[in-house]
Amino acid sequence: MERQRGGRPRDSRVDHKILQTTRELIDEVGYPALTVDQVAARAGVGKAAIYRRYASKAEMAFVATMHEQQLPPPADTGSLHGDLLALVRAFHARMAAPAARQLAPALISELAVNPELDTRFTDTFLATEQAAFADIIEQAVARGELAGPVDPAMAHLLLLGSLASALYVLNLPVDDAMVTDLATAATAGIVALADRHHGDPGGAAEPG
Amino acid sequence: MERQRGGRPRDSRVDHKILQTTRELIDEVGYPALTVDQVAARAGVGKAAIYRRYASKAEMAFVATMHEQQLPPPADTGSLHGDLLALVRAFHARMAAPAARQLAPALISELAVNPELDTRFTDTFLATEQAAFADIIEQAVARGELAGPVDPAMAHLLLLGSLASALYVLNLPVDDAMVTDLATAATAGIVALADRHHGDPGGAAEPG
Repeated sequence: MERQRGGRPRDSRVDHKILQTTRELIDEVGYPALTVDQVAARAGVGKAAIYRRYASKAEMAFVATMHEQQLPPPADTGSLHGDLLALVRAFHARMAAPAARQLAPALISELAVNPELDTRFTDTFLATEQAAFADIIEQAVARGELAGPVDPAMAHLLLLGSLASALYVLNLPVDDAMVTDLATAATAGIVALADRHHGDPGGAAEPG
Repeated sequence: MERQRGGRPRDSRVDHKILQTTRELIDEVGYPALTVDQVAARAGVGKAAIYRRYASKAEMAFVATMHEQQLPPPADTGSLHGDLLALVRAFHARMAAPAARQLAPALISELAVNPELDTRFTDTFLATEQAAFADIIEQAVARGELAGPVDPAMAHLLLLGSLASALYVLNLPVDDAMVTDLATAATAGIVALADRHHGDPGGAAEPG
């Protein structure tokens, strides 16, 4: 588990208990009112055990609500659109969960002023997400659906960046029809970028 | 100016002074340390004059850094891609300004817990942005570039939602090459959504 510090073995029951308790308390009292003291008391662990694992309440809550769940295995549906739709549906279920919707805006605000948390977010959570896009793009190139590879970070941004803005910045309701539209648009966008960067020898021509 | 409350005439020099001072102080001390008292003192106005205009520091800073500048006139470049590229370049210049980058994450966090600010953000700032997309889409439909209209809110999300996530959630550097890729991808995405919702009589078929 890449979030363990320094690679020391740790009691995974304690890991689980802390994260489970954090999720329960976010559901009960909300993220703003959550404290590390509450989590320690209810989980029956010392605060030191929590601070050995997480530098702050924000990081603990982030891992509990957004990072802890493993990514689903890649769907390999046989098409770029199918793979992206399966991926965005899985992410939507996680990102739209009540605890995630409560935490994410506060986390966004903290990432901007906490470089250590931002680095951890980038190196673990974001890197894992982008790797899922890299796999899907590689398969689409192998199938001949894409003229060449597209930056996974850009693909990630087109699909999950839009979804994150909808959920966490604009506070929109997001249903499956909208998620499906996002997958359709991201698929077309990724194909267009592959054409733009690989299909045309100049590489920088504008479409249309 | 739609942000004036109740339509009463107001001293526009005071408006300007408050917003200009807010921008200066955000540049000097940063958004977290900014106070309404500081703005009132340096602008030479009473706090009451500020609170008649803005319900909170967040709202004042939002108007000063993100809302105050008028939208550029629509570019009407003759193509959907050209219009979207002109639009996203104009927004990027504004959204990536240092004061906007400082404020936006804090604003995102406050929007989630301040329904009044969220309503004002939606009804003024967001509505204006989405209207610009509605114009561009209407022109593209009239030119025959799109099979039919696409929800401007979705078009907005594809282009500026992705950009907002890049700037404010992931804290990425964003250069003109990336902005151009975003415009290319959003154009293809909007065309695909028009095809999906209008090109096929079933209207719900998956592409590919």
